[in-house]
Amino acid sequence: MSDSIAELTTRIRSFVDAREWQQFHNPKDMAVAIAAEAGELLQHFVWQQPDQVEKRTDERRDEIASEIADVGILLFEMADLLGMNLGEVMERKIARNEERYPADKARGNNLKYNEL
Amino acid sequence: MSDSIAELTTRIRSFVDAREWQQFHNPKDMAVAIAAEAGELLQHFVWQQPDQVEKRTDERRDEIASEIADVGILLFEMADLLGMNLGEVMERKIARNEERYPADKARGNNLKYNEL
Amino acid sequence: MSDSIAELTTRIRSFVDAREWQQFHNPKDMAVAIAAEAGELLQHFVWQQPDQVEKRTDERRDEIASEIADVGILLFEMADLLGMNLGEVMERKIARNEERYPADKARGNNLKYNEL
Amino acid sequence: MSDSIAELTTRIRSFVDAREWQQFHNPKDMAVAIAAEAGELLQHFVWQQPDQVEKRTDERRDEIASEIADVGILLFEMADLLGMNLGEVMERKIARNEERYPADKARGNNLKYNEL
Repeated sequence: MSDSIAELTTRIRSFVDAREWQQFHNPKDMAVAIAAEAGELLQHFVWQQPDQVEKRTDERRDEIASEIADVGILLFEMADLLGMNLGEVMERKIARNEERYPADKARGNNLKYNEL
Repeated sequence: MSDSIAELTTRIRSFVDAREWQQFHNPKDMAVAIAAEAGELLQHFVWQQPDQVEKRTDERRDEIASEIADVGILLFEMADLLGMNLGEVMERKIARNEERYPADKARGNNLKYNEL
Repeated sequence: MSDSIAELTTRIRSFVDAREWQQFHNPKDMAVAIAAEAGELLQHFVWQQPDQVEKRTDERRDEIASEIADVGILLFEMADLLGMNLGEVMERKIARNEERYPADKARGNNLKYNEL
Repeated sequence: MSDSIAELTTRIRSFVDAREWQQFHNPKDMAVAIAAEAGELLQHFVWQQPDQVEKRTDERRDEIASEIADVGILLFEMADLLGMNLGEVMERKIARNEERYPADKARGNNLKYNEL
């Protein structure tokens, strides 16, 4: 079992290459596929009220894990396709979020950084 | 710079905890946020024709990296929140895709596994 | 002010034709644009808790109306592009929903038709 | 068969009221449902290349019509729920688009209004 983004990405790239799917996997179609899979993930929670969310998550645990995996696989591949190091772009964004949302101002509220 | 899903996840969890945002980050609201960020990523490619996609991707490289990072951060956090090991669920899904899409049948076409 | 789907559709078609945008408005790109606009509509409600939704809706009334209009304009155009009568497909779907969700079984719960 | 937004909206409202679903249909959950249905519509076009889109649209005509209807039904209901006249907000947005995209500047290109 791998914890390495690079290793998982290599495995995804091999999967795609072995099927000659690079021809379909341009950046636009990757973004389309990610949005469609994010929509499938969202589907599990449509109309669910706050007090139903935990039960729903338990009952559909495998399907939800499967949708999360789908989004992850496509996202790792898209970053790779664009020559981006996903860990690096995520770290840079986390650092930016730390600046935009100082803990003492952002604590306990859900305001956007430009409303703090 | 980290390549470890676990390390990045720890850093994201610290960020969220320090801001006491766990109260907002239930599974439904995570799925909503992921779908909204996937929509922002998609936004960059709306109406773009095949021969425009490369130029668009170059011109908006930083914004696109930023959206990819947003989806990634939320996805890592959601898996963590559900007690899922993201690397493991991704590996399991890749293995399932390898079965569903045998290379010799899937090569060069974009049919769904149930159409192969 | 028009209440007619056909009239609004004609006006949208004229707008698109006058700009020679039919070349970009194929069914796939219409679906992409609709998903992107639905994402913008969703964006207004990200992280909003149940007791915040009414206030948020009031404060952002114009932006939300604008996103609803965007989805509507694209949807009317897509139906027209596919030679579908939107009112008719909606009526047919409402009739199907009435069968799938008998009032006495569906009352007061948010189960899917296959769970009733 | 109705061409009237108001008539269709009345029928949708009756359907929802008879099932006592108003309790679930707050603005946030409407936006979530619209995004999820827009995701289902998008799903039909994932990985489809330009030269495949027409065939796909023909083969899946009924499913696509059904997804378009789903988005439409939710959109009409959401506008109604917010006390908005959908025809009016659409007309206002079309008028704004006519200003933002003067035909002589926008003709034949897919630039955004702030890039014209």
